[in-house]
Amino acid sequence: MKTQVAIIGAGPSGLLLGQLLHNAGISNVVIERQTPERVSGRIRAGILENGTVDLLREAGVSERMDAEGLVHEGVEFLMDGKRIPVPLKELTGGKTVMVYGQTEVTRDLMDARRASNALTLYGVSDVQLFDVKSDSPYVTFEKQGEIYRIDCDYIAGCDGFHGVSRKAIPAELTQEFERIYPFGWLGLLSDTPPVNHELIYAHHQRGFVLCSQRSLTRSRYYLQVPLSDSVEAWPDERFWGELKERLPEDLAKKLVTGHSLEKSIAPLRSYVIEPMQYGRLFLVGDAAHIVPPTGAKGLNLAASDVNYLYRILCKVCHEGRRDLLDAYSPMALRRVWKGERFSWFMTNLLHDFEGMNAFDRKMQQAEREYYLTSLAGLTTIAENYVGLPFEAVE
Amino acid sequence: MKTQVAIIGAGPSGLLLGQLLHNAGISNVVIERQTPERVSGRIRAGILENGTVDLLREAGVSERMDAEGLVHEGVEFLMDGKRIPVPLKELTGGKTVMVYGQTEVTRDLMDARRASNALTLYGVSDVQLFDVKSDSPYVTFEKQGEIYRIDCDYIAGCDGFHGVSRKAIPAELTQEFERIYPFGWLGLLSDTPPVNHELIYAHHQRGFVLCSQRSLTRSRYYLQVPLSDSVEAWPDERFWGELKERLPEDLAKKLVTGHSLEKSIAPLRSYVIEPMQYGRLFLVGDAAHIVPPTGAKGLNLAASDVNYLYRILCKVCHEGRRDLLDAYSPMALRRVWKGERFSWFMTNLLHDFEGMNAFDRKMQQAEREYYLTSLAGLTTIAENYVGLPFEAVE
Repeated sequence: MKTQVAIIGAGPSGLLLGQLLHNAGISNVVIERQTPERVSGRIRAGILENGTVDLLREAGVSERMDAEGLVHEGVEFLMDGKRIPVPLKELTGGKTVMVYGQTEVTRDLMDARRASNALTLYGVSDVQLFDVKSDSPYVTFEKQGEIYRIDCDYIAGCDGFHGVSRKAIPAELTQEFERIYPFGWLGLLSDTPPVNHELIYAHHQRGFVLCSQRSLTRSRYYLQVPLSDSVEAWPDERFWGELKERLPEDLAKKLVTGHSLEKSIAPLRSYVIEPMQYGRLFLVGDAAHIVPPTGAKGLNLAASDVNYLYRILCKVCHEGRRDLLDAYSPMALRRVWKGERFSWFMTNLLHDFEGMNAFDRKMQQAEREYYLTSLAGLTTIAENYVGLPFEAVE
Repeated sequence: MKTQVAIIGAGPSGLLLGQLLHNAGISNVVIERQTPERVSGRIRAGILENGTVDLLREAGVSERMDAEGLVHEGVEFLMDGKRIPVPLKELTGGKTVMVYGQTEVTRDLMDARRASNALTLYGVSDVQLFDVKSDSPYVTFEKQGEIYRIDCDYIAGCDGFHGVSRKAIPAELTQEFERIYPFGWLGLLSDTPPVNHELIYAHHQRGFVLCSQRSLTRSRYYLQVPLSDSVEAWPDERFWGELKERLPEDLAKKLVTGHSLEKSIAPLRSYVIEPMQYGRLFLVGDAAHIVPPTGAKGLNLAASDVNYLYRILCKVCHEGRRDLLDAYSPMALRRVWKGERFSWFMTNLLHDFEGMNAFDRKMQQAEREYYLTSLAGLTTIAENYVGLPFEAVE
């Protein structure tokens, strides 16, 4: 088969890119290793930046998000048991974030894709990329025992950290940057009302806490735990007990506990590959970069990449601006590194690091006190949290 | 002899405290190990925060500073060879810094002290502190073979990092916090016009540079160098050559070189002792804390301590507010830790650290790019550089 853009991966970044391109009259085929059920079942991020919300609206997939998503005008931090509001809207000249789970975004994108009649092939295997450096690259894959081939002009690698796309760039042409953090996040999802109407990011001597949410009736809580811990060591009662220990009394009292729908331990990693493109192949989202979840940037940086790649491909396909093809990697990376920095800053600010000496601990405390009490400091947190502006593609 | 406050050390903090107390009718005696010539010959800081300037005015020692000091409304940063102005005044609602050397401040304070007829004893040795936990502490010392004793109500330890005051606090009651940085600053003083009318803080892959100044005709330049280097390895020509290497072409061309009046290598250290008081003994300035010079906070934090101790002693002596005696250490430390944080932040932001991996380097670059391009980021730098506000002593 033949298409303009072969999109590898039907997660939110692949589907969003596909939808935007389809709307712009640029043909594309999405292929995905997993089943649709498996893709839509992934429990991940829940906070959409201002610019991500705009992009979903531009893609025409925002109807349910605008009806059911929760606009949050602030977040809260906890420091030494004190609650510190960060009024995002006030500090950023009116910007907000949207609480709307990745699961829901994916469902909306799948519905829109289905309605558009654009081709999406699930359950494919042995995906291979060919002639990526030429003007006519192609992708082959297997589905139900048959080998298929997609001839295309461009390939978008939206297949995540463990996908094949990144590996199609010769290693000697790339540089990788990585930090592994010495702890994990134990997450619990439950059909209980959130303990607070805004998200709470808490530093506690027993470890970091995040009180997040997916809706008015579904909560997502995270605890910093040692990487050596297993989910089996954390029955629900232990999780709720530990969460209460790390919250101030007023919040611990308000906390509604319940049966966990999901519970898992995720490692924390910072990762970037440079460049994010090779010939006609463009890496998007987790295929090119990972952030620790502190700061909620993972899905938003994927949307940032989609934003740039979509606008560049529009200008290339509609206006013949082939000069822009080389602009993708540097443009995307400038914003990626800002998101990496904020995620690293937030992770360093709020977690307990075992190897810290007394001076390091004091510096971490001084950082919290400065950034959470100075108006300028709070503004740096707020403007990053709602999302820094996109550069124009011109 | 008998006085209300025995001040150990006739550096700028001891003399400023003495002057303020004297003006407020609180008697004090200053003792100093060195000769006046030696004290006034120290070449140190040159940038006075907004609040330090106000305190010198309040002490009545600002006439020459206000006539000869240079008000700076901004500083510059260099990043990847680009010059980035940081308009301090604009970003802080009108605050500025004053370029006026520590040598000059000390001279003005010595003149004022002499004019006040308050007692200052130079060249003393074997200073010892006694009964510090009682209501009637005393200090003994030797001068020209004779032993003297000062009976007093309070002792101010203004005798620097290597002084005796800090050691008078039992070690088991204190906690020390320290970071040694793996490089030094090679400083050169010369009677040449400054290369730029504003100070320049520069990151360069060959190492940090500071283009500072003492007046319109006297420059002070610093280069990051390995701690293993000696001054002998840096004849003037090598210094000027290396400085030009680290500056962009336009500045390198403008640089006027000349004979060095002074050249030295200083290690960089962060250090704090807690608490800063013990009974009737109060530590002030370097006796209690050291900052790396990046950010120009050393003298200013000493002035910050003087500000709090002076106001507290006034209320104690004039209004009987003995409850305030215990407030000194926590109040002083809150501002000290903010200054320590900023000095550590600036040091981390601008120096080349040997042990950094590729990710660390990218994070450092992302920090520079964020803080030096975001208005909120620039404001955090500006408000710390001009000096965060003092708390009220009430």
